[in-house]
Amino acid sequence: MKIARFTVQGEKRIHIGIVEGEIIREVKGDIFGEWTYTEELFQLAKVTLLAPLIPNQVIGIGKNFVSSEDELPDELPEIPVFFFKPVSSVIGPDEKIKLPPQHEQVKFEAELAVVIGKEAKDIEEKGVQDYIFGYTIGNDVTSAQHFHPDGHWTIGKAFDSFTPLGPAIETNLDLINVRVQAAHNGKLKQDSSITLMIISIPKMISYLSKVMTLQPGDVILTGSPIGAELLKVDDCIECMIEGIGVLRNSVMKVEK
Amino acid sequence: MKIARFTVQGEKRIHIGIVEGEIIREVKGDIFGEWTYTEELFQLAKVTLLAPLIPNQVIGIGKNFVSSEDELPDELPEIPVFFFKPVSSVIGPDEKIKLPPQHEQVKFEAELAVVIGKEAKDIEEKGVQDYIFGYTIGNDVTSAQHFHPDGHWTIGKAFDSFTPLGPAIETNLDLINVRVQAAHNGKLKQDSSITLMIISIPKMISYLSKVMTLQPGDVILTGSPIGAELLKVDDCIECMIEGIGVLRNSVMKVEK
Repeated sequence: MKIARFTVQGEKRIHIGIVEGEIIREVKGDIFGEWTYTEELFQLAKVTLLAPLIPNQVIGIGKNFVSSEDELPDELPEIPVFFFKPVSSVIGPDEKIKLPPQHEQVKFEAELAVVIGKEAKDIEEKGVQDYIFGYTIGNDVTSAQHFHPDGHWTIGKAFDSFTPLGPAIETNLDLINVRVQAAHNGKLKQDSSITLMIISIPKMISYLSKVMTLQPGDVILTGSPIGAELLKVDDCIECMIEGIGVLRNSVMKVEK
Repeated sequence: MKIARFTVQGEKRIHIGIVEGEIIREVKGDIFGEWTYTEELFQLAKVTLLAPLIPNQVIGIGKNFVSSEDELPDELPEIPVFFFKPVSSVIGPDEKIKLPPQHEQVKFEAELAVVIGKEAKDIEEKGVQDYIFGYTIGNDVTSAQHFHPDGHWTIGKAFDSFTPLGPAIETNLDLINVRVQAAHNGKLKQDSSITLMIISIPKMISYLSKVMTLQPGDVILTGSPIGAELLKVDDCIECMIEGIGVLRNSVMKVEK
């Protein structure tokens, strides 16, 4: 099932719906709890897709992909590189990534994003699947020039528009063959199987749940494949995962 | 005006009210928007105070106090050490700080916490006051053993119970004479005027607003004075700011 949030031309109201081919069947209620179909249908081509949820919070993991399976480490890091991104940084498909002032470029990072569906505390790896609601695509846009010299990434990940999410949440993604891909101005720059993750999805969620109580609507960006590059004004970045779709954004400069 | 969140013995319902001496006058509505008094009064001594809000998000600043005004740097750091704490880490007055597994100790850090009252983007220092709803006390509990060797503090600040907030939000605090104090098992360990902050409150909020859109309910922990120490099981930590109150928590071990 593919869940989308959207608006219809000329209206401010935000709809939620299930995408079925070229049609979206509107639903009402709480996607993490009780919901029902309304009678309304919309044509996918005629709506404006938004980020498929307003996350409760956004958690990222850094340095989580190798370029080939030979490079996977024998021992996992004791403390993974986790970071938080503010919810204010989230944008939807086709919204503009805004270059911060004095920036000529920012980095794109295509990622598989996990959406947590129910409260998760102290869960083991083998039980993680029960807490995953679905998957979407994230772009962990980054300004490395705002990394603190002592190592803190906070500001470099936090600018408004730095977390495109979408186009939809797929609740039935088969993780066996998932590849995370990104095309920069039409050229494929990232293209990795998630088997190249250092810390697997069950491991990272189990680890996080032993630190903090994960909540419905928490979004975990699971790391970006080798190959991320820099975006400049007017560039187009397409983050792609088969079975979820294409998350396309272009880059604009904000005059101040 | 002092705003508190609380429950009444035997009930699950969460109340909001204005503290007036020993009485709380219940209110209903949105404390950041429209609210009105109900007819209900409660005795402060008979309610259980909760964290005075569920933050939209929690932002911290590190290394922000010196021990005397002579040590204030002539030049401010280009990128302050900011970090995010998950909302799941928030607890209220008298709730227990839980030692994570394999921990004998965690650090306390008493802080003045700013509550943002309206959306703030690209604001200048002199305009910051208009966006501040009020102030509460925060304890930025920290496990330094979970700091990543590359400098990321994320996990070390993120455990459940690591962000006590309270006892109330004071909307009319006069910042001129504010001192941030902490008593550890009754002994005063932190006691600094906020004039010893390296990055002042207007500077840090203006800086943040130029990165991200701050939202009503965002809580900014403004840094902890020199003198923070370690807490062990059964210790009591009281964070104090005159005009706001005392935020008291003790420490427990979680058996697993």
